Amino acid sequence: MMSKTDDPSIPSFYKPIHGELARVEASLHEASIGGFAGLSSLLSHVLGSPGKRIRPAVELLSGKAFREDRSDLLVLMGTAVELLHIATLIHDDTVDNSPLRRGKPTVSSAWGRDVAVLLGDYVFANSAVYVCNTNNVRAIKSFSETLMALSSGELREIISAYDWRQTREDYWERIKHKTASLFATAGETGALLADAPEKGVQAMKSYGHNVGMAFQIIDDILDFEGTEAEVGKPVGNDLLQGTLTLPALLIIERYPKDNPIQRLFQKPAEQEHLKAAVEMIRNSSVIQESADVAKGFGDKALEAVKGLPNHVYRRSLEEIVEYVLSRNK
Amino acid sequence: MMSKTDDPSIPSFYKPIHGELARVEASLHEASIGGFAGLSSLLSHVLGSPGKRIRPAVELLSGKAFREDRSDLLVLMGTAVELLHIATLIHDDTVDNSPLRRGKPTVSSAWGRDVAVLLGDYVFANSAVYVCNTNNVRAIKSFSETLMALSSGELREIISAYDWRQTREDYWERIKHKTASLFATAGETGALLADAPEKGVQAMKSYGHNVGMAFQIIDDILDFEGTEAEVGKPVGNDLLQGTLTLPALLIIERYPKDNPIQRLFQKPAEQEHLKAAVEMIRNSSVIQESADVAKGFGDKALEAVKGLPNHVYRRSLEEIVEYVLSRNK
Repeated sequence: MMSKTDDPSIPSFYKPIHGELARVEASLHEASIGGFAGLSSLLSHVLGSPGKRIRPAVELLSGKAFREDRSDLLVLMGTAVELLHIATLIHDDTVDNSPLRRGKPTVSSAWGRDVAVLLGDYVFANSAVYVCNTNNVRAIKSFSETLMALSSGELREIISAYDWRQTREDYWERIKHKTASLFATAGETGALLADAPEKGVQAMKSYGHNVGMAFQIIDDILDFEGTEAEVGKPVGNDLLQGTLTLPALLIIERYPKDNPIQRLFQKPAEQEHLKAAVEMIRNSSVIQESADVAKGFGDKALEAVKGLPNHVYRRSLEEIVEYVLSRNK
Repeated sequence: MMSKTDDPSIPSFYKPIHGELARVEASLHEASIGGFAGLSSLLSHVLGSPGKRIRPAVELLSGKAFREDRSDLLVLMGTAVELLHIATLIHDDTVDNSPLRRGKPTVSSAWGRDVAVLLGDYVFANSAVYVCNTNNVRAIKSFSETLMALSSGELREIISAYDWRQTREDYWERIKHKTASLFATAGETGALLADAPEKGVQAMKSYGHNVGMAFQIIDDILDFEGTEAEVGKPVGNDLLQGTLTLPALLIIERYPKDNPIQRLFQKPAEQEHLKAAVEMIRNSSVIQESADVAKGFGDKALEAVKGLPNHVYRRSLEEIVEYVLSRNK
């Protein structure tokens, strides 16, 4: 982990928190060796994969921007947000039947869906224990509400699958719950644990929310880019699962009476409808328009951190926005 | 709910807490109408089924035994323990592929396993929000550790399925985690929220633990009783799922070299092995021996509440032990 900062491929925003991030990594490793024998091998499979750890980065930077001496609490909470993220990935992969995650077999494909359901529960619970160890009731509450938001967002997505009558507002609600809520909690609790004034807490919550919205929109755009060989899953995989994302919604808004997405959702088994929908999205301006919307959220995130006094951490938070918007995988 | 106390079929231990139990029931109803449209119908399906609410009863009685003016906190925590119990049932039914629960289709059989995974997560999260509303950090911590215990107990069960080399100690660990931990938390947090002295908190935790152990052993005995038509699932369903419970373990201890359970676990598809194993268990003394072990835990639970000053609540707690031990479905 320490060598990360010397690696030019590692974004520079990790620099001012590299010590704390190494401690988050160590906590994740520690969490993976607890429990009984069969559990440890499962946990090291899911916790050992090197992730971008972008949520812990938001947590740590949001806190250190206000106080530099609260690392212990911030590391606990940074570990908790990453564990919660990993728990949702385990359940999402189970629901989506995904074979691979970051190039490794998913828990559900390697050990079966039943193990994946219960392992996800265990990692959820583990994240809650880390949060409780902060002893901060407001942080714990924010976290538990995020838990509800995340699962209601995922439920919304699956319940509304193949419903092409959804609006842009439905989409905002969905991604706010399933993605932005965790980023918002990372920002909010980071500031909270560093005793930031209420205005600062709200600013970091807003920063996290807006970064999270941008993050998900870019993710949804990337689903239409590249080739199946490059990305390891079918191009237009969201549409294939019946999930309407911003580019597809913009097409439906533009051609409300008839469009390939509507035809696909009515007959999901017909491959040519998926191909036509993906082609239409790729060859129109909706990808660029979606990227502009993401940039709008990014601008709001930058606006939120404008008042932060400590320029080192503020600069890293700004770089996260740039990183999220320019991400291409 | 109010009429429950007039109904002679309702155990009398509910009497001194009937007002609080009605409020728990109202909270569960309230939780079911939150969220978006598709979610509410799912929630009322799972939260509307009348359960025995035995865990909230332990919570409420453990608190009222020390202070009668903490009903608000106890109702919050009683709702939380029941929601957590319901969440684990949703995931268990998903893992076991159970078609029915209390005579109604399970969420996984009615809406699919994916919805069940995410709905279980939502109910988990909802329970955490209720706990947080108590603002009691120690209660919140106890709850989050129980979350981990429950999921690790379920994971142990599924990972060790069809392994006939398990010992009685493995079984204690497993049921302590998957069942007794939630009863222990109900007792412990009930006392905590009523400002009981530390000795009282530990006594109620011990009471809950021992009631929970007895409860699970009786449950495991009942799995070998009745007929398929009476109980709505195959007799010996645990063995069919590869789960070793106390009666089966006693058979293995007695005939370590060769027994029908070992043969069944080596060839789970062969129906005659299940029949032979069930017959052997029913026709031997292991059922009675298991019931004696359950009674031993019941005695420890009675011992734990011996020192309680308030005889009304103590009497109800004692009646719960009798009820758990004499339960026949």
